Amino acid sequence: MFYEISIIQFKKVLNNLSAILDKAEAFAETKKFETTVLAQSRLAPDQLNFTRQIQIACDTAKLGVSRLTGKEAPTHQDDEKTFAELKTRINSTISYLDTVTAKDFAESGSKKITHQRWDGHLTGEDFAIQHMIPNFYFHVTTAYAILRHNGVDIGKKDYLGALPFKK
Amino acid sequence: MFYEISIIQFKKVLNNLSAILDKAEAFAETKKFETTVLAQSRLAPDQLNFTRQIQIACDTAKLGVSRLTGKEAPTHQDDEKTFAELKTRINSTISYLDTVTAKDFAESGSKKITHQRWDGHLTGEDFAIQHMIPNFYFHVTTAYAILRHNGVDIGKKDYLGALPFKK
Repeated sequence: MFYEISIIQFKKVLNNLSAILDKAEAFAETKKFETTVLAQSRLAPDQLNFTRQIQIACDTAKLGVSRLTGKEAPTHQDDEKTFAELKTRINSTISYLDTVTAKDFAESGSKKITHQRWDGHLTGEDFAIQHMIPNFYFHVTTAYAILRHNGVDIGKKDYLGALPFKK
Repeated sequence: MFYEISIIQFKKVLNNLSAILDKAEAFAETKKFETTVLAQSRLAPDQLNFTRQIQIACDTAKLGVSRLTGKEAPTHQDDEKTFAELKTRINSTISYLDTVTAKDFAESGSKKITHQRWDGHLTGEDFAIQHMIPNFYFHVTTAYAILRHNGVDIGKKDYLGALPFKK
């Protein structure tokens, strides 16, 4: 289930996030303000701003999958300033996810996942379920909440996206 | 992996959420305001308030697991007004999750999940990955964001909780 939980779902939600950025851009144009205002917005003075939320959401997907599969991920400089640059960052993350196959996760469940700040390791399964997935949705939802608080007309459907209904 | 993704992780995050409510209560006491102010807070005038976010997070866990396993879930009246009542709601949800075992998910992956508002059905796997999980984290993170915006001193660790490191 690793592939479905990470690759399929991360790509979908990152595409949804890109469409949410489009809606925010359209809102800024209508209201005649610069999108950089939104890029620098936050919900509390000691919270990471919108730009950082997007960067970390992308990195959670990219680095999480890289740790689980061993497939090297592209590096990013975290120097995005504009919405166009943030969308490029999202697209670059999706392009990396596109290179990973279900087979690449064959050993992921029992893999030892380490991090310099961690005392010990997590199994791949614990890492995916208790860190990668909740962390990814945390930053996407926080980015969404920052826009919502600033009046962008988005709803939960924009976050969840279309569901694969079957007849 | 259904059991780990839903029961283990939902229980953990709901316990984290309950501890976050404790921090919010302590903050309200220090600042000398009623927690009902937080219970009614929202980030935008047309967003569901904090209380509704908690109720929906609980229902997403409870009803999602019930749909996947067929194990009947307790009903709740959505009449919580106080933080104490919200914590009772969270605890009641955790108690229900406690009754579900890994075996109960044996048929979940291929189960047809239906909803009156849906045109067609979702497979259990698609429902879990593309609806239940992102929806759960969406409402927990939104509740967190409402408190964060109101000055409660919480961080991402309060949301993620302890990780099961191994030596």
